[in-house]
Amino acid sequence: MIVGEQYALTAETALGFDESVARTRTELEMEGFGVLTEIDVQATLLKKLGVEMEPYLILGACNPTFAHQALELEPELGVLLPCNVAVYRRGSRTFVSAVDAERMLSIVGNDDLTPVAAEVRSRLARVVERVSHAPA
Amino acid sequence: MIVGEQYALTAETALGFDESVARTRTELEMEGFGVLTEIDVQATLLKKLGVEMEPYLILGACNPTFAHQALELEPELGVLLPCNVAVYRRGSRTFVSAVDAERMLSIVGNDDLTPVAAEVRSRLARVVERVSHAPA
Repeated sequence: MIVGEQYALTAETALGFDESVARTRTELEMEGFGVLTEIDVQATLLKKLGVEMEPYLILGACNPTFAHQALELEPELGVLLPCNVAVYRRGSRTFVSAVDAERMLSIVGNDDLTPVAAEVRSRLARVVERVSHAPA
Repeated sequence: MIVGEQYALTAETALGFDESVARTRTELEMEGFGVLTEIDVQATLLKKLGVEMEPYLILGACNPTFAHQALELEPELGVLLPCNVAVYRRGSRTFVSAVDAERMLSIVGNDDLTPVAAEVRSRLARVVERVSHAPA
């Protein structure tokens, strides 16, 4: 079940952290997204600040066709790409959270982006749902 | 001069593309940002779609202290990190464009984020201004 509709589509999963990451990659690929960036937030904050936190990974997902369409409409849109999907542990629970592409792109104020944003949002919602429903 | 205040802080620079990228990296470092991700949009779209476009690079910038503060306030905030700075060519002109962190984080609806967002916005604005004013 997806919760947190403010700016992210988030769901808990019964999978462990590593399994969630692997499953998220698979589901992203099935929805036409390549993973262009990856940030190990836990490792980065430990290294830079000496702060300990639970596992937290940010995958930067990009569907080339939609990215191209969006950049044709808005040359500056690169500042909002790629669409992130975060996998993180909190307590002893694992969550997967995708940016709400419609909400994020609403700040652009270009109505021509609406169909692309809606399509990306639907696909990322399916990714989150499927990872959420995967049996442990 | 920064233009485009909708969701990005954008300025033209007299520097060439590669020089703009190098200068952007230097200025980001001076403002306390590490570059965690890098997307060569031109190369990616050529490879995935066979589409030719002008040089376009997205640098994912992160100030660990601010990122940590933001994640403490909003566990899902990773879906909006890092803050991107794009360098791109358009016609025979080079532009540098940073995401407006205040505008982007406004979609979160958490007033506690306001000071961090404002500070990040100020720093990225200085980066854009300095790259814009760098002599060719």
